[in-house]
Amino acid sequence: MKLDDLPTPCLVLDRRRLARNLERMASAVAMLGLALRPHMKTAKSADVARLALPDGGGLTVSTIAEAEYFLAHGFGDIILGAAITPQKLDQVARLNAAGGQIKVVTDDTDMAAAIARHPGGVSALIEIDCGEGRSGVAADDPALPAIASRLGERLAGVFAHAGHSYAARDRATLTAIAMRERHDAARAAGRVRDAGHACPIVSIGSSPTALIPGDTAGITEIRPGVYMFGDLFQAAIGTHTHDDIAVTVLASVIGRRPAERRLLIDAGSLALSRDRSTEATAHDWGFGQVLDAGGEASLGATRVVRVWQEHGLVELERGAVEGFAIGRRLRIAPNHTCLTSAAHDRYHVVDGGDEVVAVWPRINGW
Amino acid sequence: MKLDDLPTPCLVLDRRRLARNLERMASAVAMLGLALRPHMKTAKSADVARLALPDGGGLTVSTIAEAEYFLAHGFGDIILGAAITPQKLDQVARLNAAGGQIKVVTDDTDMAAAIARHPGGVSALIEIDCGEGRSGVAADDPALPAIASRLGERLAGVFAHAGHSYAARDRATLTAIAMRERHDAARAAGRVRDAGHACPIVSIGSSPTALIPGDTAGITEIRPGVYMFGDLFQAAIGTHTHDDIAVTVLASVIGRRPAERRLLIDAGSLALSRDRSTEATAHDWGFGQVLDAGGEASLGATRVVRVWQEHGLVELERGAVEGFAIGRRLRIAPNHTCLTSAAHDRYHVVDGGDEVVAVWPRINGW
Repeated sequence: MKLDDLPTPCLVLDRRRLARNLERMASAVAMLGLALRPHMKTAKSADVARLALPDGGGLTVSTIAEAEYFLAHGFGDIILGAAITPQKLDQVARLNAAGGQIKVVTDDTDMAAAIARHPGGVSALIEIDCGEGRSGVAADDPALPAIASRLGERLAGVFAHAGHSYAARDRATLTAIAMRERHDAARAAGRVRDAGHACPIVSIGSSPTALIPGDTAGITEIRPGVYMFGDLFQAAIGTHTHDDIAVTVLASVIGRRPAERRLLIDAGSLALSRDRSTEATAHDWGFGQVLDAGGEASLGATRVVRVWQEHGLVELERGAVEGFAIGRRLRIAPNHTCLTSAAHDRYHVVDGGDEVVAVWPRINGW
Repeated sequence: MKLDDLPTPCLVLDRRRLARNLERMASAVAMLGLALRPHMKTAKSADVARLALPDGGGLTVSTIAEAEYFLAHGFGDIILGAAITPQKLDQVARLNAAGGQIKVVTDDTDMAAAIARHPGGVSALIEIDCGEGRSGVAADDPALPAIASRLGERLAGVFAHAGHSYAARDRATLTAIAMRERHDAARAAGRVRDAGHACPIVSIGSSPTALIPGDTAGITEIRPGVYMFGDLFQAAIGTHTHDDIAVTVLASVIGRRPAERRLLIDAGSLALSRDRSTEATAHDWGFGQVLDAGGEASLGATRVVRVWQEHGLVELERGAVEGFAIGRRLRIAPNHTCLTSAAHDRYHVVDGGDEVVAVWPRINGW
């Protein structure tokens, strides 16, 4: 099957680019001396997980549905990275009774007590806020030893995520954020141990900070995710190049207005998402960069400038509208690959060319 | 089953509000003397379609997947409202060979010729641009009779959509847009007939313009869609009230920061979408209005102010964070119900209360 045979819109995954991205991150993490626990919230695919961890290992997930799916595909050692609730703790306990070793995350004293009381014996990590301000307790928060004591034997470690690394626009800022992530996680682990608890897992990570070399004393593992596929936003902040973007949306021309140099395509806000993250970067890619059917940037800076549910409006920066017949294929590089991929239930895998060499399912929803 | 038993995040559909919205639109369309051909791109559910058309009738859809699904559920008379491509024409012809009467839409002379040549005998409507500027030919465009001639016996009618009605902020502007939509569709049909062609279907419609009374001479049918569920944006532009919003996202508290009056919930950019359409209205609802577990606005103007993939940040406008335990349920009214619903594969149906009386699947994807 060729790309031309696929109904549009659909996702295309370039396996050669994926392999290069995986290799690059594996090398960076090896240099840091850490275990790689990839975050599967971007790819949501067991096929991708097997390539990311050729020798096996632990995963990070964001939903119960992902935990259940990866467990069913042979990945038992999982951290569920979004903070747990009592009801989800019941769900995790059921999955662990079926063979999982799923660990949960909390930053809440009451929830820690509920985890300790739960008959399922689920282990938990304490979430540490290393500067993002979203979730977690600060490394120096007086509540930290109290949460550790509440968890008691259920305490598996500490868990930090420098999500604010995505806002860094220069190397010095990014490096400072990476160092703070490592420092805070190690300091929190030290305080937990000083309070008399074991703290075997000291987990950090985001795709930008994972690529920063330097001291990782006291850290055991790292959890990047979006590095597998990349996107226009990641390219804008320098975590990879445009040529590393592995996932694109295949779309068809459904309308054309030569006088306005415009095309309409059948990829809109559902197929592309409404993510506008490149708006805050040096180059605003609208709702995505328009590539040719081969995935090359032969149309220059052409982008999707507006979206409706199933329509995308393309303003041609190069070439004439008359050259685009109705039905002609284009590919769209996404602003944010996690959100764009989430509207699709499978990847059409290519090895750089136009031959579809595999179809890999995704686990969406909750 | 109760709402409290559901894993979060998930969609809740209030059937009493749905019924009220359906009744209101059916009455408005009956007053206009038109056939109602509801657009199913919002609800994507055969259960909802059966309630919208208790006596049967034609539907509008936005994707091949929807066309196939509704045909399988007994709805054969379908207009595929997003402009057709050669490949999708093949798909439609296969569905019609299996019993469908699916009609397609085009505004392109070459595509019209391809439709006429196609052995599947698929009928098509000519898309008319009544002022939005997205797609379609103008009612006075010299290309209109040429497209009609190319379609020949495949010509089924004309098709207009006043999508720019969503940008209207007062009744006079909206009324002018509705009148233009009707005028342009009727005029285009007249020109097609003057050129010697039959034009049995003269189709218009958006949820805002469908509610505007007045002369509909020459129009045969109307295609509103989002009216079934409503959302914060529709409430802002006055097509219904907040109390008519039928779809909400059920979410759980996963974090709390009393000093900042903040909660974290497990509904983020996937469960809510990144749609920010109320940003351009009198009240910016962020990523959605936060309601209590009963769906009531007891938290005042509390909203989701920021989203990550699986996290939503709530700033409490009323009440104390200490009153919200981890795991406590909230409901989020969406900015744009089409996009929010699209991340979910089913509706949990309630009749105003907390008892889940049915689970209705959705047909997502392409």
